[in-house]
Amino acid sequence: MTKQPASAPAEITRYATTREPEQLTDLVSVEQPLELRVRGRSIAITMRTPGHDTELAAGFALSEGIVTDPQQIVEIAHCTRSEATHPENIVNLFLTSETACDLERLSRHVFASSSCGICGKASIEAIHENWPPVDSDFQTTSATLRDLPAQLNAAQSEFKQTGGLHAAALARPDGTLVCLREDVGRHNAVDKVIGWGILNGILPSDDHLLVVSSRASFEIMQKALAAHIPLVAAISAPSSLAIEFAHANRQTLVGFLRPTGFNIYSHPQRIQD
Amino acid sequence: MTKQPASAPAEITRYATTREPEQLTDLVSVEQPLELRVRGRSIAITMRTPGHDTELAAGFALSEGIVTDPQQIVEIAHCTRSEATHPENIVNLFLTSETACDLERLSRHVFASSSCGICGKASIEAIHENWPPVDSDFQTTSATLRDLPAQLNAAQSEFKQTGGLHAAALARPDGTLVCLREDVGRHNAVDKVIGWGILNGILPSDDHLLVVSSRASFEIMQKALAAHIPLVAAISAPSSLAIEFAHANRQTLVGFLRPTGFNIYSHPQRIQD
Repeated sequence: MTKQPASAPAEITRYATTREPEQLTDLVSVEQPLELRVRGRSIAITMRTPGHDTELAAGFALSEGIVTDPQQIVEIAHCTRSEATHPENIVNLFLTSETACDLERLSRHVFASSSCGICGKASIEAIHENWPPVDSDFQTTSATLRDLPAQLNAAQSEFKQTGGLHAAALARPDGTLVCLREDVGRHNAVDKVIGWGILNGILPSDDHLLVVSSRASFEIMQKALAAHIPLVAAISAPSSLAIEFAHANRQTLVGFLRPTGFNIYSHPQRIQD
Repeated sequence: MTKQPASAPAEITRYATTREPEQLTDLVSVEQPLELRVRGRSIAITMRTPGHDTELAAGFALSEGIVTDPQQIVEIAHCTRSEATHPENIVNLFLTSETACDLERLSRHVFASSSCGICGKASIEAIHENWPPVDSDFQTTSATLRDLPAQLNAAQSEFKQTGGLHAAALARPDGTLVCLREDVGRHNAVDKVIGWGILNGILPSDDHLLVVSSRASFEIMQKALAAHIPLVAAISAPSSLAIEFAHANRQTLVGFLRPTGFNIYSHPQRIQD
């Protein structure tokens, strides 16, 4: 089994207030699906950073109640090359024959606690059947983007009280925030602003951008695509799969958004100096 | 329907280097399950901050492909009081009769992208059947805890390169880190260190603490309980349900862990000055 790296290079455009935008290669965290199988059956898919997959499978088995005693685990092994297209993303969990394992109950519970059920590149293609790539001449400016963190901060009411919430917001091309929502879950905050857009007849459409206080994962990009949003800006880092997804679906992806600058990971043509 | 608050008071013990530990009331973000139903059937449960539930349901329906056009949504409404014990945590999504909805396919996909399938208080009791509360005389000191963020930072190799990873680590009562793992998913980082503990014969046992670079949610506390870990320390904020879970399962929960101090949310007797 070839060891998969935990970080990967990405070609980016970096904007800083102090100098001209520059093209450079940066490292991003790899996000790839891991499928866990028990007795030949898929019981969970989780989006993870490759590495220590055996530990991940063992910890998941105990912490999700698949086993109650580590002695019930006989062996943990990646698929062999002949079995699958991406054996490095599939781990078999071999349990003692005495281990009772109610797979019906399990699948339901276990699926619920993994963060995404969609399997990497193959599924990026499958997603195209549901949602076409974004064709939009949406335009904004670097100054507009750099002003968003301060706006987000000013509008985040709950966060100031508890320090524990993620925020997502919809903004017009000129940077006007039209809706901000907060939640303990990143994906919920995004669903709330998309839902606001739907209920107010503003979405789906390609004339707003989405800004999130957190990381940009595959899941966030997929939700933005479903609402036809052409530009996603994240205060924190994007994952490798988010970048790959954004490229494939013609979404502009901005990361590390700060008043002093930001990185563009895909389709920079929508951002002017 | 009574409006549920997005934040709630919690009784905490605050440690600061500049003064004696003090008891006070602080606000924490509320985390509660929301169940979405289509045609009477549960299609997703997500742990969310109450508020804007209708928007959350609308956004989820579009962004997860339950509907492809908002016109397919006829009405979104909370359960009525007579139907359920916690109607405020259940939302019905009424779709046009023409909307094809493959619920088999849907449940699988949708469950996969929600963050937790366990339903609040009722399920905290159900969890007791799987895992008993932690009875442990584990002891550590406030100085040991305050030293952990620097140790975590020094050991986080991937984060420095990409800025995009969560970390989890196991430490002895004297603060010695024995294992640190990083991942794009908070829960994966925790599963990896628990898995390391299992594979090395160290877990389950009650003589290590878990430190996480992120928030402490219900899910993190449940995973720690499965490994018999008596103390969880989070660099960021805990949720209301994490605190409730920690109280019920006799886990010590520390949040906002910094070199200058921290908050204790439950069972402070395991921490000495």
